Amino acid sequence: MIYLDNAATTIHKPETVIEAVTEAMRHVGNSARGTHAGSLDAARIIFETRMKIASLFGCPDPTRVAFTCNITESLNIAINGLFSEGDHVITTMLEHNSVLRPLYRLEKERGIELSIVPADENGCICYDDFEKMIRPNTRAIVTTHISNLTGNMLDIARIGKIAHAHDLLYIVDAAQSAGNIPIDMAAMDIDVLCFTGHKGLYGPQGTGGLCVMPGVQIRPFKVGGTGVQTYLKKQPEDMPVRLEAGTMNAHGLAGLSAAVDFINETGVEEIHRHEMELMQLFYREVKEIDGVTVYGDFSGDRGAIVSINIRDYDSSEVSDCLMQDYEIATRPGAHCAPLMHEALGTTDQGAVRFSFSWFNTKDEVLDAIKAVRELSE
Amino acid sequence: MIYLDNAATTIHKPETVIEAVTEAMRHVGNSARGTHAGSLDAARIIFETRMKIASLFGCPDPTRVAFTCNITESLNIAINGLFSEGDHVITTMLEHNSVLRPLYRLEKERGIELSIVPADENGCICYDDFEKMIRPNTRAIVTTHISNLTGNMLDIARIGKIAHAHDLLYIVDAAQSAGNIPIDMAAMDIDVLCFTGHKGLYGPQGTGGLCVMPGVQIRPFKVGGTGVQTYLKKQPEDMPVRLEAGTMNAHGLAGLSAAVDFINETGVEEIHRHEMELMQLFYREVKEIDGVTVYGDFSGDRGAIVSINIRDYDSSEVSDCLMQDYEIATRPGAHCAPLMHEALGTTDQGAVRFSFSWFNTKDEVLDAIKAVRELSE
Repeated sequence: MIYLDNAATTIHKPETVIEAVTEAMRHVGNSARGTHAGSLDAARIIFETRMKIASLFGCPDPTRVAFTCNITESLNIAINGLFSEGDHVITTMLEHNSVLRPLYRLEKERGIELSIVPADENGCICYDDFEKMIRPNTRAIVTTHISNLTGNMLDIARIGKIAHAHDLLYIVDAAQSAGNIPIDMAAMDIDVLCFTGHKGLYGPQGTGGLCVMPGVQIRPFKVGGTGVQTYLKKQPEDMPVRLEAGTMNAHGLAGLSAAVDFINETGVEEIHRHEMELMQLFYREVKEIDGVTVYGDFSGDRGAIVSINIRDYDSSEVSDCLMQDYEIATRPGAHCAPLMHEALGTTDQGAVRFSFSWFNTKDEVLDAIKAVRELSE
Repeated sequence: MIYLDNAATTIHKPETVIEAVTEAMRHVGNSARGTHAGSLDAARIIFETRMKIASLFGCPDPTRVAFTCNITESLNIAINGLFSEGDHVITTMLEHNSVLRPLYRLEKERGIELSIVPADENGCICYDDFEKMIRPNTRAIVTTHISNLTGNMLDIARIGKIAHAHDLLYIVDAAQSAGNIPIDMAAMDIDVLCFTGHKGLYGPQGTGGLCVMPGVQIRPFKVGGTGVQTYLKKQPEDMPVRLEAGTMNAHGLAGLSAAVDFINETGVEEIHRHEMELMQLFYREVKEIDGVTVYGDFSGDRGAIVSINIRDYDSSEVSDCLMQDYEIATRPGAHCAPLMHEALGTTDQGAVRFSFSWFNTKDEVLDAIKAVRELSE
């Protein structure tokens, strides 16, 4: 199988990641719930992972990295824990439902106000819109880094600058960029960076987290056992236990730790370069094929995602054909990005998404181009 | 190391569980986010695990098994998703902070009323108290199955009967019983059963869930992408996606699936019998040692947990000694069960908890007894 669904999850993990999880499952106990070797092993693995993640994303304090089971949980924690009645929040049409649904819920249940920066038919936004939308009660801007549908990249440093110029918080969904695009929270004016472990970081499923800049206080989402301050009726205030109730997934985090090592050894820039090369090759060829529509803006730096349609064929049928006849894994349909589909005009047809990773090869891309060419004929 | 901290997490996993996770990390994609082989593999693994869990716990419909990253999340989902302003909820002094803190939070923020069934100095409750505490606005009873501190077992079928006789929901925290004590939701009148994967089920950390009886509607806790019904502004209503936003941990769930196979092949009754034998041996011997205080009720069926103190020694010092001098892993201090410590009179001293699993041997228990005897001299 040629796996080109890396924006959903990277199926090819570094061997060291698999080994780290396997090894952890043989000897790791419950972190912060004892002082024996098994428990200390878990605590050490988790703390090392916090340090590596903090360092990777430019978060100045590793204790302000909280782990979750996926980025949807991270975004729910950030959005639910920061906004209260009367707050106004600005987001964009590029967003995934993991951003939109938590915001829509707060709009309905907590009376927050929501403004959505529009995108054009190429999935591009106008950065001036953020400033135009700011109101006296605006509390934050929440955006993705890379659209999971078009691969368009937002200039998060620019948005962060706008946010901080107006004393707003800036929350970034790095689902499609963590591990393959350089991110520096401090330099880019990001207050909360949400990430997942199983995509561009090449870690196990069941891992993710959020990095929270010092001074930003997020109310706890889950509450419960922490192994510390047992007699407090509420969740302890200190990070990271403030946002981490219950037994941590030390098995998965051991894998994430090895995954960040792999990223650092390979180099984020090098990964990005390789993925861009594959993506650009695919884009250059398929855009010339008669009957193929390519979505998104390819004029600048971007993510390694190319979404297309072939004539008016149903995207699911095309994706099924690619799998059955060519053993090429893609993702069709709607991509949990309802407003992006509206902007592109693909709400009915959906789109066939090809997404590339470090482990894909040029030959695989050439096979995919050939398959698209044959299907369009 | 002699590992006797199984109530925190079972460190010894069946080899088949480790193999299943390793194997899944090599070929599993993102469930419900495509129709290629990797995605279908993930979907199949997850659905098989739902079926096995439903069957293990007597939940009549596998689609009503929702997976979480740990039981704390399961309990947060159940408690936050069922109770509204003006509801009255009954719980017990045996509870873990994973039950108490979500309830305390709703008491403060949502105005629910809370009654707590007291426990005596042996950690025992009086079942009549539940009926005495019922009010016109009582909505549910929430209890643990086994105290994580004393190992005392509650008669959940009896409590379930009381609950259903009064049209109340019954929510059970099976953190210490899932996998080692038979549970049948339908027969025991349980409406929501919360479980974790990494303790008595011998699965990986990062897995857990809740089984919800048909007819019981829990409001979503996390909301976000589901791979289905993209254009809906709120979380889809159908179980299980209603309670499962974001990418599922198919790697971990592959391990949980193998773990349930292990439980079924070994037999829950057989596991319970073995653990009781070890626990009873330990209890019989240590209770006779001069200076040793054993907590809890040993007159009937119970969990494989024995908590003790030696004279007025600090429990953390005893536990450290057991690790450093005898390589025996136990857990000291407060055990995230603040009211239980109050009932036992151990809020200051804490307690040293010995907890046993299928993988412990009689020789290990004899070594532990010997160690306690030496320390108390």
